[in-house]
Amino acid sequence: MQMPEPRREVLDRAPHILQRLEAALPGGIITDPTETRAYECDALTAYRCPPLAVALPRTTEEVAAILRICHAEGVPVVPRGAGTSLAGGSLPTADCVVLGVARMNAVLETDLPNRLIRVQTGRTNLSVTGAVEAQGFFYAPDPSSQLACAIAGNIAMNSGGAHCLKYGVTTNNLLGVTMVTMTGEVIELGGGHLDAPGYDLLGLICGSEGQLGVVTEATLRILPKPEGARPVLIGFDDSEVAGACVSDIIRAGVLPVAIEFMDGPCITACEAFAKAGYPACEALLIVEVEGSEAEIDQQLAQITAIARRHDPVEIRESRSAEESQRIWLGRKSAFGAMGQINDYMCLDGTIPVSALPMVLGRIGALSDEYGLKVANVFHAGDGNMHPLILFDANTPGQLETCEALGAEILKLCVEAGGCLTGEHGVGVEKRDLMTHQFTADDLEAQMAIKDVFDPHWLLNPAKVFPLSVSASRREGGGLRGAA
Amino acid sequence: MQMPEPRREVLDRAPHILQRLEAALPGGIITDPTETRAYECDALTAYRCPPLAVALPRTTEEVAAILRICHAEGVPVVPRGAGTSLAGGSLPTADCVVLGVARMNAVLETDLPNRLIRVQTGRTNLSVTGAVEAQGFFYAPDPSSQLACAIAGNIAMNSGGAHCLKYGVTTNNLLGVTMVTMTGEVIELGGGHLDAPGYDLLGLICGSEGQLGVVTEATLRILPKPEGARPVLIGFDDSEVAGACVSDIIRAGVLPVAIEFMDGPCITACEAFAKAGYPACEALLIVEVEGSEAEIDQQLAQITAIARRHDPVEIRESRSAEESQRIWLGRKSAFGAMGQINDYMCLDGTIPVSALPMVLGRIGALSDEYGLKVANVFHAGDGNMHPLILFDANTPGQLETCEALGAEILKLCVEAGGCLTGEHGVGVEKRDLMTHQFTADDLEAQMAIKDVFDPHWLLNPAKVFPLSVSASRREGGGLRGAA
Repeated sequence: MQMPEPRREVLDRAPHILQRLEAALPGGIITDPTETRAYECDALTAYRCPPLAVALPRTTEEVAAILRICHAEGVPVVPRGAGTSLAGGSLPTADCVVLGVARMNAVLETDLPNRLIRVQTGRTNLSVTGAVEAQGFFYAPDPSSQLACAIAGNIAMNSGGAHCLKYGVTTNNLLGVTMVTMTGEVIELGGGHLDAPGYDLLGLICGSEGQLGVVTEATLRILPKPEGARPVLIGFDDSEVAGACVSDIIRAGVLPVAIEFMDGPCITACEAFAKAGYPACEALLIVEVEGSEAEIDQQLAQITAIARRHDPVEIRESRSAEESQRIWLGRKSAFGAMGQINDYMCLDGTIPVSALPMVLGRIGALSDEYGLKVANVFHAGDGNMHPLILFDANTPGQLETCEALGAEILKLCVEAGGCLTGEHGVGVEKRDLMTHQFTADDLEAQMAIKDVFDPHWLLNPAKVFPLSVSASRREGGGLRGAA
Repeated sequence: MQMPEPRREVLDRAPHILQRLEAALPGGIITDPTETRAYECDALTAYRCPPLAVALPRTTEEVAAILRICHAEGVPVVPRGAGTSLAGGSLPTADCVVLGVARMNAVLETDLPNRLIRVQTGRTNLSVTGAVEAQGFFYAPDPSSQLACAIAGNIAMNSGGAHCLKYGVTTNNLLGVTMVTMTGEVIELGGGHLDAPGYDLLGLICGSEGQLGVVTEATLRILPKPEGARPVLIGFDDSEVAGACVSDIIRAGVLPVAIEFMDGPCITACEAFAKAGYPACEALLIVEVEGSEAEIDQQLAQITAIARRHDPVEIRESRSAEESQRIWLGRKSAFGAMGQINDYMCLDGTIPVSALPMVLGRIGALSDEYGLKVANVFHAGDGNMHPLILFDANTPGQLETCEALGAEILKLCVEAGGCLTGEHGVGVEKRDLMTHQFTADDLEAQMAIKDVFDPHWLLNPAKVFPLSVSASRREGGGLRGAA
């Protein structure tokens, strides 16, 4: 992974810079290499780099103090939530300060009449729900990593999850943020009210991968827990037929909360690992619906009627909470199961739902061509694919072949009318593919926005944009100069 | 309404400019004063100004051609949908070309499996639903003006409607746009897929009041029509108690599709006009729920149980489609009814739902203080208020008193934790109040974004930002100069 040369002027002045940081945040700056090790990489573990230092503030004011120093000294800053990014979104550079929000996990306000909660962004996704579930509410976005991942990272990557087919992704559930800009200004965007006048800067910040500011506090929409939910498992002997079935369910106007898809290689691995009792077949759908018992019955009847027209191998409706849990068990352990038997690279493209059968067919052909197995497991209802490319990291050349195949599959998603990332973000992983998604004019418009918030391109450097096009901005200090 | 001085250099060269426009768009340029009259104002009829010319293109390419000429000649451009803005969002200046999309109303693509429709943005809101309703789908945002208003304006103002409590506003239902920038570049943002990599420019465009580009085509999410819907009418003898009831319904975790609120003055006027048979009382709620019959029954039981704890004057459940229509009849004719007996100014603030009782009390006190009646009719479920200030335009000084009272009420909304506009936008009407909502830093960040897309500030001038702060940008050609 090519990264920009560390800034000489930063490395040369490191002792002075660290002294300033420690004075501003006593006990909150880590420089000991044994302790910074945990911050060298995120969940894209193939790439790692020790940072200059790690700062762990506890308040918005402390974040502002760190940023003001880094801005004054020209030090790059890499914001970090819980480090669960699969795209290298918080990969450090050798000249950077990693700014971690792990110590900022307080609930600041719970406001049930207005259906909102305000938290510091280091709080984990699942513990947001934890703070309101006794009162009958929940926070909807549910990334697979929800036990560990922080709201800060969810906002940076605009994360989704299995249930976003019905509830939307982070941007649909985010009402307001407190953000610190690279110059240390604290700004409030949105809030506990509908919409806001002026331009939608809140929406712009959500999904901007920590490149426009550091979000320290967030106001989140919470929703009443549905009365009940129930999944049905549907097996097919052909992946493309399963894809056509998904397409028909959506077309019929049913709106399940989740439609999860696993293909043959994935089913075999999950079954060996989790023993969920899945039928042996080429493709499995887990379709979950919500509501009252009567409504659940009616929706499932409609879904199974559609499925029957596609010659399923098996339709297994859950009859109890235990059966529901078993149906989900295999899917939820899919990534762990894959990790047991293979190294894998997890892709994250999106496609129009109607293109599912075609794209699955083409992925199969590409898999044969490159000689690497691909297991498909994904949120099929909204077309968010997570193909897992299986490889052996110890066989020389396989990582490179795997990366090349991954790029082909993501290009295929773009060609099919979809895009490079559904919820993992661009990070370092997909920055060079951005030219396949966007024209030079499109990228220019995006980079001009970064110039506004971070004219010297210090914040989360070398991510999102191809190095070749972003290098000149960094050198030039942005189009607007040292504004 | 103060507007900037017309650009001398434009007026002096008008014949040459008009000649160029007519050559680019034969038959599509209107300059005859009797014909341009219809474009002198929008639904904020108090303010009007004849433009230099009106351009009515039919395609994205024609829009680009007009914008290229205007950019080259330094001519301001005022984009216009159907001209239904209540905030003066499409008020012309004397030196501008009004760029109307009324002739661009084609359906470009209907894609039911992917639940989307692509239209030219001159198409009216209701006719989007019209194109898919036979297949069982609908487009959710439903402004009161939905019979007339264009998708272009819905996107510019991020419009909502009575049912956005459940379905969200325009930004939650917009998947992609084709936009022409002031320099005539055509860019695509978003598309028929989930999310998109890079910064969320689509979200930024939605609600930017036509100041960043002219949106010519839009991809919209369509939803399956619910099985059924049914309203209940609940009368109270106290506005604040009705507000507390709304707050309790939301807190209990019920999610109606709409909670509409009318106070005493509004009920009296509606009843006289529409004869819907409303009970005589101080406050009425119309709460509508959706789903299967069983689900509707269960939700209404929960809602009426909550209402009973607040001592209602009457609870009237609908037992038929005719009764449902009668319940809605009065509310839907509220604005017309007011117009019959008074001149009125319609405000559009938002507040946290829990602040409803307090804000209603304060509005009553302000109404007494200014000696003008205020009728309250609004989307109470999501805190989007539409207080109507009643006045007599023929009594000297009353318009000014009305404007002053309106400003006080909107400042009250901001103080209560809400904002200046829910769905009508800032336009010219609320530009001077923006300094109450935002700090100088906040406004600077927004204006820097406009610099990026429109460095000479030609697009929809004198809107959104206070004239005092935006004047220097216009003169200076933006911070970035003539980029």
